[in-house]
Amino acid sequence: MSETTPPPDEPTGRQRFSRRALLGGAGVGVVAAAAGGVAIGRATAAEDTAGSQVVVFRGDHQAGIITAAQDRLHFASFDVITRSRDELVALLKAWTTAAERMTRGEETAPDGAVGLGDYTPPADTGEALGLGAANLTLTIGFGPGLFGPSSSDPDRPDRFGIADRKPAALVDLPAFAAEKIESSRSFGDICVQACADDPQVAVHAIRNLARMGLGVVAVRWSQLGFGRTSATTQSQETPRNMFGFKDGTANLRAEQTDLLNRWVWIDQQDNPPAAQWMTGGTYLVARRIRMDIEPWDRANLLEQEQIIGRFKGSGAPLGQQGEFDTPDFNVTSYGAPMIPRTAHVRLAHPDNLGGVQILRRGYNFTDGSDGFGHLDAGLFFIAFNRDTGKQFVPMQQVLSRQDAMTEYLIPNGSSVFAIPPGLGPGEWWGQGLFG
Amino acid sequence: MSETTPPPDEPTGRQRFSRRALLGGAGVGVVAAAAGGVAIGRATAAEDTAGSQVVVFRGDHQAGIITAAQDRLHFASFDVITRSRDELVALLKAWTTAAERMTRGEETAPDGAVGLGDYTPPADTGEALGLGAANLTLTIGFGPGLFGPSSSDPDRPDRFGIADRKPAALVDLPAFAAEKIESSRSFGDICVQACADDPQVAVHAIRNLARMGLGVVAVRWSQLGFGRTSATTQSQETPRNMFGFKDGTANLRAEQTDLLNRWVWIDQQDNPPAAQWMTGGTYLVARRIRMDIEPWDRANLLEQEQIIGRFKGSGAPLGQQGEFDTPDFNVTSYGAPMIPRTAHVRLAHPDNLGGVQILRRGYNFTDGSDGFGHLDAGLFFIAFNRDTGKQFVPMQQVLSRQDAMTEYLIPNGSSVFAIPPGLGPGEWWGQGLFG
Repeated sequence: MSETTPPPDEPTGRQRFSRRALLGGAGVGVVAAAAGGVAIGRATAAEDTAGSQVVVFRGDHQAGIITAAQDRLHFASFDVITRSRDELVALLKAWTTAAERMTRGEETAPDGAVGLGDYTPPADTGEALGLGAANLTLTIGFGPGLFGPSSSDPDRPDRFGIADRKPAALVDLPAFAAEKIESSRSFGDICVQACADDPQVAVHAIRNLARMGLGVVAVRWSQLGFGRTSATTQSQETPRNMFGFKDGTANLRAEQTDLLNRWVWIDQQDNPPAAQWMTGGTYLVARRIRMDIEPWDRANLLEQEQIIGRFKGSGAPLGQQGEFDTPDFNVTSYGAPMIPRTAHVRLAHPDNLGGVQILRRGYNFTDGSDGFGHLDAGLFFIAFNRDTGKQFVPMQQVLSRQDAMTEYLIPNGSSVFAIPPGLGPGEWWGQGLFG
Repeated sequence: MSETTPPPDEPTGRQRFSRRALLGGAGVGVVAAAAGGVAIGRATAAEDTAGSQVVVFRGDHQAGIITAAQDRLHFASFDVITRSRDELVALLKAWTTAAERMTRGEETAPDGAVGLGDYTPPADTGEALGLGAANLTLTIGFGPGLFGPSSSDPDRPDRFGIADRKPAALVDLPAFAAEKIESSRSFGDICVQACADDPQVAVHAIRNLARMGLGVVAVRWSQLGFGRTSATTQSQETPRNMFGFKDGTANLRAEQTDLLNRWVWIDQQDNPPAAQWMTGGTYLVARRIRMDIEPWDRANLLEQEQIIGRFKGSGAPLGQQGEFDTPDFNVTSYGAPMIPRTAHVRLAHPDNLGGVQILRRGYNFTDGSDGFGHLDAGLFFIAFNRDTGKQFVPMQQVLSRQDAMTEYLIPNGSSVFAIPPGLGPGEWWGQGLFG
């Protein structure tokens, strides 16, 4: 066909061959091309055989806390850049709809990648088309700065009139020994934790939420995790961290309801009436912990195992045979404790911390090289607890001062967020706080 | 047990419970704990049901070129920091052994994580224990700088006495329009491309090779890719890039032997006798192409599709219905070509380039946020071709000047490497060059 002007009534190639014409009467989430049989929507669980598992979005608690830890993470922290409470609420409502859709493996809006027509930017950026739900969970939290003044920052403005709703235990983290916190990797007004078994699904979710927030929120920092370090259910095998050791063996588990109620989920009695919106929620602590990979790799096996307090191969506590054997801190060898006084497993053990426990959900990260030829890698530590000031903070105060591992760690990001409970039917993210 | 000194002949807890005692007569790659039944070695393909597929390491060509593209990438570029040819050769031999082992899902050395004893750093860093082979491929290449002087850098020293062995088409890339190349993301003497279906397996491989190279090579830069953008076999579905479009539809495929012989594999006639070590090899071009994600996401659908030249949903060329339909560059709509003159699919098509083709093997990347709240994301472009100066370079000269997509791209890394052929039994990486 030559490039001559067609008669005015000739349908354009664009109209004849547009995606609209290809979209038959297919249902939400499965858009099949009527003509060629080419599926161009994201598959639903029933359609897709791989990576399509759907984690239910609504419930008593948010998903992504005790959900069996998925393999990949994209965590984003946002600054709220509007002063308008209405704009923020509108975004939270829109986010809720899009988030629930994405956790079902759907686009942010029906037919989102192509559905708004030629002259509008697509509602969905499209790179997750065809990838399934991949167990995506999206977990929202609110940082201390959103609530105005605090003891550490008494002049912080109460931008949205919610200072009275601040939950009792949402406190800025204190400084710890031996950390090098970078503001550009820390803090933020709102966090969204995206976990999925496909990294492109997690990245897509954060990207689309960020995009929807234009003019209302801006990404302050984000972090990808490529391998989980924690098992959150009995059936998950304990993975290894970048030191090559099994990590999270002694973690709380989803099945331990009594312990979760004690150490993770916020109870009615924990907050005054104005902060009851947090009942059933929890607090998230995020720490970017760069590991000194190259010096660690030059440490001998005995030193590595004495720092951790476990055998590298089996993961068994020193002096024991199996990974899940109870550590015996009294076993000695030639008069010295087999698990040294400075070993991580001893210091982090509840027995050493007045019984305190937390739920860990960390991810390994590698962010390329640092310009000096060293791997910028480590642990993106995520933990959930019911009262950060009584659980994570005292634990970290002990570890940061006494743990032999500290010599090989450079914590450079630190944040805390209030994680509201799950949503009932029709509810939206933040409704308890802003509704 | 109290912490008193045991009698001198009492076996220490360490000896009693060491990993050595737990290691029964298990074979290479599968180390089973005799006592507790706890497997502490990496599983072999026969043992592991998930992610354990093994890609054969040796063959006519290196694996990782036409191998069905795995999902994850860790690509590293090394500077050689020794002046000793013997040291470099010794490293290449040691790398070969470790690389072949890792591609079988084994540690870098037998029983590597714990086998050298207490007072020696482990031979393997351990974080891939239990993860299987995950289709790991390791592909080595040599950069122009290793061979001494070039037309663009005539004073570069011939450090290893191999200037005469430089393959004819290993040329430094010229500058292209609209690129912002950063030296810290470009160039290098040796590259290793690690592809696997598990990112921790790919990261582990690069980390251990880098570690073995202490004093001989140093990582210059590295790049993680979290999602492939190319299909290299007929059976692989075309994935989507960070613009949300299917990418790599028109790629060369592993099954197209004649085309690969023409466009990818180096023939005897391509090089003088001293560079015959490259026969059966190819050249790798790596480009880190950051995408301007946020402006792209604000572009309307029509603009996006006219830049790419394909429909976003189906991936069909504009004017066609199916992804694999042949683009018809002559179709017009109201007198203008349906696939615009500046569309990527038109400019990159062999018909526009004198028939020239390349084999693409790219990966999506997201390296967090850039400090301005923007996603540092894009395409880590990898391509293989038989003569970079006659294939990639003219193609890129056209694209960088005419492709409408250029407005949304910031290429900031650029490298080229000579990829030797595969290894026969007993051969080592670089033997053809240094042997």
